[in-house]
Amino acid sequence: MSTADAPMAPMSVGLIGLAVMGRNLALNIDRNGFPLTVFNRTVARTDEFLANEARDTKIRGSSTLEEFVASLSRPRRVITMVQAGGGVDAVLENLVPMLDVGDVVMDGGNSHFSDTNRRFDTVGDAGVMFLGTGISGGESGALHGPSIMPGGPTEAYEAMRPILERISAVAGDHPCTAYCGSRSAGHYVKMVHNGIEYGDMQLIAEAYDVLAASGMTPVELAETFSAWNDGELESFLIEITSQIFQVRDRQADGFLVDKILDSAGQKGTGRWMSQDALELGVPIPTIDAAVWSRNISARKDERVQAAALQSSRLRIDSTDQLVSEVRQALYASKICSYAQGMDLLRVASETYGYGIELSEMARIWKGGCIIRAGLLGLIQGAFQDSPDLPNLMVEPSFSQQLEKAHTAWRSVVSRAKAAGIPCPAMSASLDYYDAYHARRLPANLIQAQRDYFGAHTYRRVDLDGVFHTRWEDGAKAGEASSDQVAQA
Amino acid sequence: MSTADAPMAPMSVGLIGLAVMGRNLALNIDRNGFPLTVFNRTVARTDEFLANEARDTKIRGSSTLEEFVASLSRPRRVITMVQAGGGVDAVLENLVPMLDVGDVVMDGGNSHFSDTNRRFDTVGDAGVMFLGTGISGGESGALHGPSIMPGGPTEAYEAMRPILERISAVAGDHPCTAYCGSRSAGHYVKMVHNGIEYGDMQLIAEAYDVLAASGMTPVELAETFSAWNDGELESFLIEITSQIFQVRDRQADGFLVDKILDSAGQKGTGRWMSQDALELGVPIPTIDAAVWSRNISARKDERVQAAALQSSRLRIDSTDQLVSEVRQALYASKICSYAQGMDLLRVASETYGYGIELSEMARIWKGGCIIRAGLLGLIQGAFQDSPDLPNLMVEPSFSQQLEKAHTAWRSVVSRAKAAGIPCPAMSASLDYYDAYHARRLPANLIQAQRDYFGAHTYRRVDLDGVFHTRWEDGAKAGEASSDQVAQA
Repeated sequence: MSTADAPMAPMSVGLIGLAVMGRNLALNIDRNGFPLTVFNRTVARTDEFLANEARDTKIRGSSTLEEFVASLSRPRRVITMVQAGGGVDAVLENLVPMLDVGDVVMDGGNSHFSDTNRRFDTVGDAGVMFLGTGISGGESGALHGPSIMPGGPTEAYEAMRPILERISAVAGDHPCTAYCGSRSAGHYVKMVHNGIEYGDMQLIAEAYDVLAASGMTPVELAETFSAWNDGELESFLIEITSQIFQVRDRQADGFLVDKILDSAGQKGTGRWMSQDALELGVPIPTIDAAVWSRNISARKDERVQAAALQSSRLRIDSTDQLVSEVRQALYASKICSYAQGMDLLRVASETYGYGIELSEMARIWKGGCIIRAGLLGLIQGAFQDSPDLPNLMVEPSFSQQLEKAHTAWRSVVSRAKAAGIPCPAMSASLDYYDAYHARRLPANLIQAQRDYFGAHTYRRVDLDGVFHTRWEDGAKAGEASSDQVAQA
Repeated sequence: MSTADAPMAPMSVGLIGLAVMGRNLALNIDRNGFPLTVFNRTVARTDEFLANEARDTKIRGSSTLEEFVASLSRPRRVITMVQAGGGVDAVLENLVPMLDVGDVVMDGGNSHFSDTNRRFDTVGDAGVMFLGTGISGGESGALHGPSIMPGGPTEAYEAMRPILERISAVAGDHPCTAYCGSRSAGHYVKMVHNGIEYGDMQLIAEAYDVLAASGMTPVELAETFSAWNDGELESFLIEITSQIFQVRDRQADGFLVDKILDSAGQKGTGRWMSQDALELGVPIPTIDAAVWSRNISARKDERVQAAALQSSRLRIDSTDQLVSEVRQALYASKICSYAQGMDLLRVASETYGYGIELSEMARIWKGGCIIRAGLLGLIQGAFQDSPDLPNLMVEPSFSQQLEKAHTAWRSVVSRAKAAGIPCPAMSASLDYYDAYHARRLPANLIQAQRDYFGAHTYRRVDLDGVFHTRWEDGAKAGEASSDQVAQA
């Protein structure tokens, strides 16, 4: 493998794709002292960037990919910040043949992990190392320090590591980046981050809905969320929610949040987590609820028509305890949501052989990214102390917190249900908690039904083996035997 | 295209694959008078079948695929009843080259619709017509008359139609089969049938769980479900549930249902519907809940350990109204579940160009299949009267039924939540109902958050256009404007 063979500054890096995330990441890399060349398919955008945001930087632009590649010291390090899907493939198709064995390409976009797996094979065939890397933090994070989740060959990671550790956010003196694991681990971790983000946002929206139904004004909501941000719920999303409620509408009377159409958009990445959780058989109902809630919110016209058919929704009685109860319901639901995300990471790591260290993932989410929250420090500690924890909910301190919150949580969900206020994510979180802690579920009946109509067999609680019963005959006779069909 | 050129009886048919579904379907075809040749990869199974179950039939067996193909009149009609996935591909690879233009192959297995789409192309390239066909009813249905859901070229359907209409179940003088639509429509409809089946089974299990928690015995449960089967809940699954509760354990004291391990199995087909609904953005939370409930039930060991950490579950107070309330909750939830299934069929039909007629799908599910139920007649009528119904819940008679049931439904869900009894499917159904009928959802806050951290923009309720706000500055200033970034 070649090493840096030019007198240029070491650790130079190239970045392809100058949409807002790419531009901000470029400025971040430059600010941290790494010589950087940028390339964009439309050269005018490169020129515009260099003439404006990048004017006072050392960033160089290339007008052709050949020039771009030639400008980089070896082993070359290239970061692609282009649209996930066909955009990444198009860049790789042109770029990889120009690279040499030992060069590294890092895809910093929101790629689906299965695309990343495919690219490891195609890029790897050319001897080039590929690093599938999730980057979270939005525009601001990209500029000031995101959370960075790289996955792939450790050698590729080590080649990029000095850069990633400098440009990422810092939490508790540590950079918010770590090696996630092999192959598509980085993009998988980012996918789970995004799903948790969906869950957090939906849970906050439900808390808002219940409180608003009790008559709270935006001013009161801003104060409430601001107070919550000083406690166990401390997080970026709670903080910006408090700020959002403070903003009056400059164009008309009232608050801006009340003027926004209640039809949530999405870029489709939230559902990826739900789809793969189904594939792996891991229950993540809080995140599922967040996804379908966005989908049903988008059907605004249908909803307005349906609402006209129904008796009006009730209000929630405003009691002294309501705000405290909603806070506890939100926090308990959030624990369940993170428990689901960590559980999926655990199973995915086993199934796909990623080698993900759960405590490290919690750690690198503590800063820079959208879900950064005080809770993540506790989660990091929980998995540091007990790497083999079967579920976050049963870790002693979390178990106690849930036990303490459950009465308030049940009260909020029950009152919302009674009042006709949908609370899919809080409610699914509670069902997850109750089902996970149920010594006995009614799945015995489901097994009996499956055995009745499809001879799917069942196991018994008191005997080893696999059994089948002739149920129809049994019902006529009033009794039947479990006929053993196989050893357990 | 060749026509029948031999003096053999017309409409002969071949069947490949003699597992239990194939054997029973073969007996059904023979009983209805169609000359039939069967083939199985392991010839011993063919011999065994002909010597036993098929002894007194006219069914012929072939020991080679060549002999099998040669035995069929033209155009040849072949039904494959082999394991979905690689099994079907292996058969097609050998079979199709032996067939001629105009011959028909019908896959009667539980194939994933995307596999069926792929096979239309590969089989169609050879000039052979392919019919992807869902068959429901378990072993008994296959023998006595299943519900049959064919999709593909209409010409292929017409070639098979006389056979399918004879061997299917009959409901209200009509055969429980109809042309579902183009390409993979048949397997798609079957997938939705299976998802609805998951939903029905989970809802029944939750009703059982609540009633059992109030102290009802299997004898009382059997009586309750039997009485329910005479009303609006009349269905195969309610009927067999009533029978299951009647069966005492011949090996030990007590009832058999209580001895079955509460760990539900699955063949994985239920999740297909949830996965594609996510792909299409269609909310189907009742079915999602059924899928994750099976997954969490399978974690029996984890649950038992977690249960030990928790204060004990409460009981549900047995009131006079409880049985009636649970019945209403079950029925209302079931309507929501079917509404979700029909909604997914509608969107899938539009997206994939299937041309599915919803009233016909409800009709062919009225007999033979696992979800057969009185409710399906009402659903058939609803979509006959209003083919463009946006959602089953808003059809006037269903809307009234839901409005009538909602108080009881809310009561059951609230009491279960308070008592720590998980009821994910009933609860998700209620959230679906409430969210669909909500004039306003808290998704405005989600849009504000997305615009805050990602500049994802939003729409307003009072102005046309697409807007972005500088929220952080707005919070400092106490007000901000909606900056128009594009036309609506």
